[in-house]
Amino acid sequence: MNFEERIRCNIIKNKVMSAEEAALLIKDGMTIGTSGFVTGGPKAVPLAIAERYKNEKIKLNLYTGAIVGDELDGAFAREGLVNKRIPYQTNKDMRNAINNGSVKFIDMHLSHMPQQIRYGFLGKIDIAIIEATAITEDGGIIPTMSVGNSPTFVNMADKVIVEINTSQPIELEGMHDIYEPKDPPYREPIPISKVSDRIGVPYIPCNPDKIAAVVFSDMKDTTLQLTSINETSKKISDYLIDFLQTEIKHGRLPKTFLPLQSGIGNVANAVLGGFIELKYNNLNLYSEVIQDAVLDLIDADKVEKVSGTALTLSEEGLKRFYTNINKYKEKIILRPQEISNNPEIIRRLGVISINTAIEVDIYGNVNSTHILGTKMMNGIGGSADFTRNAYISIFATPSTAKDDNISCIVPMVSHVDHTEHDVMVVVTEQGLADLRGLSPKERAIAIIKNCAHPDYKDVLMEYYERAIKKHGAVQTPNLLDEAFLWHTRYSNTGSMKI
Amino acid sequence: MNFEERIRCNIIKNKVMSAEEAALLIKDGMTIGTSGFVTGGPKAVPLAIAERYKNEKIKLNLYTGAIVGDELDGAFAREGLVNKRIPYQTNKDMRNAINNGSVKFIDMHLSHMPQQIRYGFLGKIDIAIIEATAITEDGGIIPTMSVGNSPTFVNMADKVIVEINTSQPIELEGMHDIYEPKDPPYREPIPISKVSDRIGVPYIPCNPDKIAAVVFSDMKDTTLQLTSINETSKKISDYLIDFLQTEIKHGRLPKTFLPLQSGIGNVANAVLGGFIELKYNNLNLYSEVIQDAVLDLIDADKVEKVSGTALTLSEEGLKRFYTNINKYKEKIILRPQEISNNPEIIRRLGVISINTAIEVDIYGNVNSTHILGTKMMNGIGGSADFTRNAYISIFATPSTAKDDNISCIVPMVSHVDHTEHDVMVVVTEQGLADLRGLSPKERAIAIIKNCAHPDYKDVLMEYYERAIKKHGAVQTPNLLDEAFLWHTRYSNTGSMKI
Repeated sequence: MNFEERIRCNIIKNKVMSAEEAALLIKDGMTIGTSGFVTGGPKAVPLAIAERYKNEKIKLNLYTGAIVGDELDGAFAREGLVNKRIPYQTNKDMRNAINNGSVKFIDMHLSHMPQQIRYGFLGKIDIAIIEATAITEDGGIIPTMSVGNSPTFVNMADKVIVEINTSQPIELEGMHDIYEPKDPPYREPIPISKVSDRIGVPYIPCNPDKIAAVVFSDMKDTTLQLTSINETSKKISDYLIDFLQTEIKHGRLPKTFLPLQSGIGNVANAVLGGFIELKYNNLNLYSEVIQDAVLDLIDADKVEKVSGTALTLSEEGLKRFYTNINKYKEKIILRPQEISNNPEIIRRLGVISINTAIEVDIYGNVNSTHILGTKMMNGIGGSADFTRNAYISIFATPSTAKDDNISCIVPMVSHVDHTEHDVMVVVTEQGLADLRGLSPKERAIAIIKNCAHPDYKDVLMEYYERAIKKHGAVQTPNLLDEAFLWHTRYSNTGSMKI
Repeated sequence: MNFEERIRCNIIKNKVMSAEEAALLIKDGMTIGTSGFVTGGPKAVPLAIAERYKNEKIKLNLYTGAIVGDELDGAFAREGLVNKRIPYQTNKDMRNAINNGSVKFIDMHLSHMPQQIRYGFLGKIDIAIIEATAITEDGGIIPTMSVGNSPTFVNMADKVIVEINTSQPIELEGMHDIYEPKDPPYREPIPISKVSDRIGVPYIPCNPDKIAAVVFSDMKDTTLQLTSINETSKKISDYLIDFLQTEIKHGRLPKTFLPLQSGIGNVANAVLGGFIELKYNNLNLYSEVIQDAVLDLIDADKVEKVSGTALTLSEEGLKRFYTNINKYKEKIILRPQEISNNPEIIRRLGVISINTAIEVDIYGNVNSTHILGTKMMNGIGGSADFTRNAYISIFATPSTAKDDNISCIVPMVSHVDHTEHDVMVVVTEQGLADLRGLSPKERAIAIIKNCAHPDYKDVLMEYYERAIKKHGAVQTPNLLDEAFLWHTRYSNTGSMKI
């Protein structure tokens, strides 16, 4: 490790200390803003904080980009250190703490968070803890594998702890593009008109006086486990690609294609992977996370440019990335989540969004967050930032879950994260429903017919028909007294089936 | 009437005909796009179409800006001429036709519609029917009291029928600012950084060859009936103004204030009227509709600039407007609804949005469209364009309706138009709940305590507590099997009360 290369700013060289020493900067009641968007969260410092305060049970507000590792969410949750948690999580212990009421979780649109912090709506940020590749001559912080909310946390925090991760290659420098919009009434147009546009600087600007501690670590990010593409994902991907090609044929989508966004997880990765079969050689991605399938597309020379806020690769993907880092770096721009998820840019570029759902109802409302209408799964993340502003908004889900005991197509979703006004296409392994320009009753027929699993198709149609029998052909026929009968049945019997 | 002043383009002077003759251009199965956003819709031509085809029962798709007059929605609905209707309506006969299934109604975000038309998602526009003040030398159409979707209808239609309304003063010319964004991948930033920025031309560009007919009419718009400000509206307005002033005091809102948006109707008008008591003399409005209260604010010299897509004045307001048209014109810009409601601009300017709700639930979800989860009221309109992108998003509603037999605060809304992720403030005549940075359980307490009517407060709290008893303190405690019990009770007994 070349120390001079990792800390280039002389006046902070004497701020290097152990994680245990840095942890002492944390006090009860503080709000901590950390780097981390699946990857790139701090690790050594959080572990030291959890260890230091485990018996004192201090309470902290924990704000991040999105998902952070078990060293942070897990360790903090297990020691009961968290009062408020914003904006997204997937950690088992954190999720349990949220659903037993010990942690207050605010489930926010990812693009909303940084501006609401600057506006003062989420309180003061006391300390930012940011994983870095290196620190520049002027105190600028070069992020690692994600950007997330780090620029805003650094900007707004009283003090900054930088965790330099020496397991991350110095070649990451130059991949990031950091730009923070001004606040109203002084905000100007964000000058991105092409995915490839760079508008900022390759580091997070930071007054070196604010850097209170620099900690060295070499802990690796937990990588995502990608399962091999299964039949369900493959079918979804095939339906989707067929649909998009038909759109081009009918002139409803430019022949040059438009930038893609694809959510996190195996289904999304598989869907994106399917694009390798297309004849397009200049795909652009304007997305949130960049998964393994993107490396495949780059390797197949199908990609012009990829913009996201985080690289979220599997163990194997990470190895590929490091081996050919300069080749991939040329194609990839990592931006703050305020920019990667910005409605202004998403609508301007005409992004095609592909996100997954927990359940979809027959009228096209989508639940992305709540199990049986009550328990938090992960959060809405950036799905709505993209969906509402997409050129075409797509939701993909298997038609069933838990050995067909759950139908992902239901009479009424038990929680609404995306309204009927926002969802253009629903696709399952059964087929695809194109909802554009359809009234609710037309949508119901399309979704039941094309997307529902055979085990549930007739029962859904029967619900719809009985609702019309009761209320007449109103705008949205529903039976309010049995809208959630499937959910309560599942709670009681372990299956939505009668 | 000065004919030369109203039609300045020589080659279309011979296209002047009667409404009855123009009506013959309409054929079965056509899609018609008309001007009209509360005001400014065509009147003579639609009446002639309804009369001409009343016995033939042809079917047309009717696309408008938003609300249109009874001459269009009412006449067409009564004669059964409508197949598909997009995107918003308030006409009694049209609403009945929608809720008996004879009209397919697509309830869309108003900012989505023009781009979806250009993208080809809503089919081809055969004929545009546009009310105009005059036609310029090059065929440019000068709108009347609203802009709505007219630029896109004119752009995309095969033929255009212009209905020149001579009851509208020629002085309207110069008030409009017409700009249509390019489509992806060629769209550029929309260059509005201040409410006062003009970015287009004062007429709708139109190839004169496309103008198939010019019809003269002098029919007046149906004006809105504004009731005098009642105690409920006054209290809501007082709570809101107090809240906004406190925000300024705490530095969470700039001292110079930010642009306001206020929805349509009496409550919204009353709330806006309350701003006359503030000491600010440079208010800006970046809104959809411009109601009477805005004239009051202009007269009191409180306003810097007002931008909207429609002037929607009462009979009395309209008289005031005409009497001092040049004074008001200086302050007002009318834009296409794609621009007035554009997320990019709303977020950039930091608009404070104030919209009304049919019902709000204890977790902050809002129903803006459906009565008892099934029947269409009016539509979502632009409320979500503003809400999702607002600096502060506010929903105002009386705490009860129908002589307190309906609680507008319910355990679970029967239809979701604005999700918990989007709603920052709820205000009723009982008080105001500031939901920013609150978890769902904190929100429930705030809404029940501050906003619910005394008749329903205890029952709401009891629902919330029983949900926790059943599921534990999960993220969002709900009782799915009785979430809509209040709604079904109202259906059965005429009251939500036990």
